Amino acid sequence: MKATHHKIEPGKPIVLSAFDPAHTGKYTDKKAAAKQLKKDIAKMAALQYKLYAENRRAILIIFQAMDSAGKDSAIQHILTGINPQGCEVHSFKHPSAEELDHDYLWRHYVHLPDRGRIGIFNRSHYENVLITKVHPELLMAENLPEIHTPADIPADFWEKRYRQINAFEKTIAENGTVILKFFLHLSKGEQKKRFLDRINQADKHWKFAYSDIRERGFWDDYQQAYEDAINQTSTAHAPWYIIPADHKWYTRVAIGNIIVATMQAMNIRMPAMTPEETQLLEKGREALLAESA
Amino acid sequence: MKATHHKIEPGKPIVLSAFDPAHTGKYTDKKAAAKQLKKDIAKMAALQYKLYAENRRAILIIFQAMDSAGKDSAIQHILTGINPQGCEVHSFKHPSAEELDHDYLWRHYVHLPDRGRIGIFNRSHYENVLITKVHPELLMAENLPEIHTPADIPADFWEKRYRQINAFEKTIAENGTVILKFFLHLSKGEQKKRFLDRINQADKHWKFAYSDIRERGFWDDYQQAYEDAINQTSTAHAPWYIIPADHKWYTRVAIGNIIVATMQAMNIRMPAMTPEETQLLEKGREALLAESA
Repeated sequence: MKATHHKIEPGKPIVLSAFDPAHTGKYTDKKAAAKQLKKDIAKMAALQYKLYAENRRAILIIFQAMDSAGKDSAIQHILTGINPQGCEVHSFKHPSAEELDHDYLWRHYVHLPDRGRIGIFNRSHYENVLITKVHPELLMAENLPEIHTPADIPADFWEKRYRQINAFEKTIAENGTVILKFFLHLSKGEQKKRFLDRINQADKHWKFAYSDIRERGFWDDYQQAYEDAINQTSTAHAPWYIIPADHKWYTRVAIGNIIVATMQAMNIRMPAMTPEETQLLEKGREALLAESA
Repeated sequence: MKATHHKIEPGKPIVLSAFDPAHTGKYTDKKAAAKQLKKDIAKMAALQYKLYAENRRAILIIFQAMDSAGKDSAIQHILTGINPQGCEVHSFKHPSAEELDHDYLWRHYVHLPDRGRIGIFNRSHYENVLITKVHPELLMAENLPEIHTPADIPADFWEKRYRQINAFEKTIAENGTVILKFFLHLSKGEQKKRFLDRINQADKHWKFAYSDIRERGFWDDYQQAYEDAINQTSTAHAPWYIIPADHKWYTRVAIGNIIVATMQAMNIRMPAMTPEETQLLEKGREALLAESA
């Protein structure tokens, strides 16, 4: 019996292989799921308007996954329909020389969403305990004090990073950012199928990168790194959700549902006017009505 | 007879008062316009996907207008339906102390859209020849050499700014950014009506700012500043469009149409593979098919 829940509770460590990537919840077909997603997008758009007007909190949504798990298409399908003025997507690629001249959290701090907005991190600071943990030689580019070769990485290095990430997320949560973290859980067989699709279909060629196939060789290491990261950083203020990703239509409806439920629970209110603001409102009315024209 | 065209040709100066803010083109009602806009959004979304895949050019869309002309709602209605991963909206507010420590174009340069993306400037570098020209005392905050009081502003100061803006836009155009500039042309009477709506309707109170009513007192100065800016900076590489704004439904359909026509004229192509990339594609296929599992 595979695990079917999505939200990972702090202090209850999971084993990733217990989760079924092909799970589709209560949905048996694409059509019903698409219908539900459409409803959820409309709710999200209405809540986003209030979030923007409230201007006190932001929402940070993190997407992490193996290649081809459907991060981009999930972002496209779930967030098309949201006012782009209230939504910003940031895709983190290889860090630039300037970014490497700062600690690994710096560029993520810089791109946090403004108050009133939904911010999407397509990949995130978690890459620093995922790809970097699988390929510790990448860490050398960070020029950390005392770490000149992978052999210099202390035993507690990754635990410290998990703690730093938890502290970072706690700080922004306490200052008004609601955080959701989605791991799109894909099976190795489905990834193979999707990579072959990219190779066989001319209109998908532009998405193909040979390096993705090389990374596939480290599948088990990545699964372990994800499992560790999820267990160490699922917190009350920044929970992880493991979302089955073998069926894209299920991935989308599951995520849409969680975003809507989270926004509803935020109890977002249109801002109330202070007595001073009400006075200015009246003063404005008088000025307009007194105009000669 | 009022002017009904929208695109301003370089070297053919216009008089703003000749343009009718209530013009609705070939549309007599909201419904037909909304239907056309829906079609155009679908076209825009498909073209945006190709723009993203092509990854060689960007589109910069500038919105300028008097308060309440409908910039925000135009952005919302025209761009909701575009994948937010390929679209970034930047609203420029009062410059920060850090921004004021750089020249006035700096913060706009920083927020230009990435290649492959549509970038929206909700207000823009044009504020530096609009609000700043109407209120020259604001220029003092820029700490320019030799300008300590408004009396120090040389006679050719604004002409120089127009030239600098033209040079800035020409540089980014030559490097792959397609530029569209929309002035939403509102009548003074319609602004009064919209301000009173904000005052009278509780759910619009959060949009009310008394300073907007103060600025309305400078209406004629702003119209002159817009007319000058449009005449001085409408270029072949970065044209201005004067969009009637008394009917929001017309504003939206007119802008949507211009964006689609512009994107169609860009002749965006999915990227072609180099021989080396085709080889890697085959190498990838072999590696996947050779897997034991």
